[in-house]
Amino acid sequence: MRQSRLFTKTRREAPSDETAKNAQLLVRAGYIHKEMAGVYSYLPLGLRTLNKIIQIIREEMDAVGGQEIIMTALQDKTLWERTDRWDETKVDIWFKMKFAGGGDTGLAITHEEPLTRIMTAHISSYRDLPTMVYQFQNKFRNELRAKSGVMRGKEFMMKDLYSFAKSDEEHEAQYAAVRAAYVRIFERLGLAGRTYPTFASGGVFSDFSEEFQTLSEAGEDTIYVDEKKHIAVNREVLTDEALAKLGIDRATLVEKKAVESGNIFHLGTRFSETLGLSFTDETGAKKPVIMGSYGIGVTRMVGILTEVFADEKGLVWPESVAPFAVHLVSLGKEGDEISKTADTLYDDLTKAGVEVLYDDRDLRAGEKFAESDLLGIPKRVVVGKDAAATGVFEVVTRLNGAVEKVPREQLFS
Amino acid sequence: MRQSRLFTKTRREAPSDETAKNAQLLVRAGYIHKEMAGVYSYLPLGLRTLNKIIQIIREEMDAVGGQEIIMTALQDKTLWERTDRWDETKVDIWFKMKFAGGGDTGLAITHEEPLTRIMTAHISSYRDLPTMVYQFQNKFRNELRAKSGVMRGKEFMMKDLYSFAKSDEEHEAQYAAVRAAYVRIFERLGLAGRTYPTFASGGVFSDFSEEFQTLSEAGEDTIYVDEKKHIAVNREVLTDEALAKLGIDRATLVEKKAVESGNIFHLGTRFSETLGLSFTDETGAKKPVIMGSYGIGVTRMVGILTEVFADEKGLVWPESVAPFAVHLVSLGKEGDEISKTADTLYDDLTKAGVEVLYDDRDLRAGEKFAESDLLGIPKRVVVGKDAAATGVFEVVTRLNGAVEKVPREQLFS
Repeated sequence: MRQSRLFTKTRREAPSDETAKNAQLLVRAGYIHKEMAGVYSYLPLGLRTLNKIIQIIREEMDAVGGQEIIMTALQDKTLWERTDRWDETKVDIWFKMKFAGGGDTGLAITHEEPLTRIMTAHISSYRDLPTMVYQFQNKFRNELRAKSGVMRGKEFMMKDLYSFAKSDEEHEAQYAAVRAAYVRIFERLGLAGRTYPTFASGGVFSDFSEEFQTLSEAGEDTIYVDEKKHIAVNREVLTDEALAKLGIDRATLVEKKAVESGNIFHLGTRFSETLGLSFTDETGAKKPVIMGSYGIGVTRMVGILTEVFADEKGLVWPESVAPFAVHLVSLGKEGDEISKTADTLYDDLTKAGVEVLYDDRDLRAGEKFAESDLLGIPKRVVVGKDAAATGVFEVVTRLNGAVEKVPREQLFS
Repeated sequence: MRQSRLFTKTRREAPSDETAKNAQLLVRAGYIHKEMAGVYSYLPLGLRTLNKIIQIIREEMDAVGGQEIIMTALQDKTLWERTDRWDETKVDIWFKMKFAGGGDTGLAITHEEPLTRIMTAHISSYRDLPTMVYQFQNKFRNELRAKSGVMRGKEFMMKDLYSFAKSDEEHEAQYAAVRAAYVRIFERLGLAGRTYPTFASGGVFSDFSEEFQTLSEAGEDTIYVDEKKHIAVNREVLTDEALAKLGIDRATLVEKKAVESGNIFHLGTRFSETLGLSFTDETGAKKPVIMGSYGIGVTRMVGILTEVFADEKGLVWPESVAPFAVHLVSLGKEGDEISKTADTLYDDLTKAGVEVLYDDRDLRAGEKFAESDLLGIPKRVVVGKDAAATGVFEVVTRLNGAVEKVPREQLFS
């Protein structure tokens, strides 16, 4: 894409109403727009990154047999009354509204209830199990404070997958498959090294629950990391009894700040029993379906990646989620040899399937480089007088600032 | 995809609480799930069709230079107060809520206001114009009645594009480009022949406004069609004066039922003046930006396509939006020659990039064919005893029921 056509502009100054580093940088770089506290629109560069994160997660969910759907934001309160999650005293983050025709509705805080009901129309026999269903959909939470930028919004996108099984063994196999898919997702997002499966206090169904925590100075959580085993526990689990059960030696643990980047839950039959999701087994007996739920905050992930990788010059994206792979920066003026060289290189790279943002504007080199650093595209290819003359281009790696001289033909590999 | 793995099941009977043909069929076929009146979730087959419609529209919006973003559902009421579209007496379809921290918010009924504000951060000079921005995003309308299935929902997805220009000529060129893109979209959706650019009474900025109307017995509108010129007028424009202005002869007009399938609006400077979106021209003068807006209801389109193409046996999809191109129906039992032939054909077609739904289940042939008709996939390839023996397959075209005998190698073309 030619940058002269990209409608977003960058800003030199951080917006005065943002305290979170992620929102400051993403707004400055024109990736997002703040509508209100905790409510952000995604502009072209931000949407491209968001879609790359979505696609990575989608591929891994499909690979373990997830089937994609999309549920609604508007919720039927009668469903949530049955599971006792409608009442203000139980769940205090609902956005609630009235229908014009009478009756209450609210905006989905999560989707266990509606999906369990959907599945009652589609699961009746053991032959219908196991199955897994997921979506990318917005959640809404009426948070009193929203100070963490896109890491904790009032409106945010999640991938949520739900598993349905006929036995504990089948459920454990689904749980293990999704857990492994999450590990692959964090690898592909460039976060594997700093993301820890973390034990938290158990739910109803097991001694411990698990979540994924990614180390970050912006983290709201404190975890205790065993670096060798690459696992962690949270504060609740920091008791001798719990550590003994987990086989973790307290002496190996290091305290770190982290942010929750994924969660995986055993739900047992809590929702299926309450909402009547059952199946008939091989003997003709009727049994409740065993469920699990597995979430990753997709917009939150944009924030985590920003917090983890950005530096004092601006954003830094891993290749897998960068809005473009290459930032082609021309130092020429319209019509001169430099511009012509850059134009042709842009066309050729684009034809070769490389995603290129092409800075074809008439601006000073210093201004262009500063903006390029702010945008955080992994490789910058500079076209100046020398490159136009020799066909050898300066390539700067955003992550470490390394500068190489690369002949034209090698740019395509 | 193997149908034995698809979690959705079809139903023989129409749901008792649906009067609209589109919702009855889409629910029966397992494409959608009704959460509440006018609120529908999209299940795997429905989501595949929805995504194909989205992709066709996206390609045409990109082709005319649209830049994709995604705005939020939650709205800042102060913006809508400035344009006088917040007050109940002016706009009575808002879902309104309170923030936990105090203050009101509502769910987007459309997005002129937030996008105009976003653009004030990015447009300041004539050099920033023209530009066009679009999104696929949910709208929410608190309709008193919702009886038209997915054609008129309380929560529905729209593609909305907005154009920004520095002069009337530039605006007219944008308007013409998007109008032409809409014509191409209706062609690709298989609706060109029955979709008419239709003149309605003018807004503030012109004698007439235009909308696209698609002929359908389920239509809520009545239009008057000049079939030769392939244009139409609505009832408001059926005056001698208006027809004379448009050069339309009343005698050529035929009354038809139709449904609005797209709209295109000149907005002039209504939003830019009110919300302060201006640019500095070549002479240094400050001027308001000239805007247009262009909508297509994406979920509504699923309903229109159903109403227009479905027959007494079930859904019928144009190839461009069908969830799969081929429904491969095996009449074998697990392990027999027929099943092996079908398995291999499924693998080979999938490898060749053909999107195949493979009915690999142990069911009676009659049941499979009836369900296949209900699902509406364009081509059905049947694998029975003869096919397994001869390598010649029965291919049924869903649209007209035509049956052909096709040798295996020709199935790939």
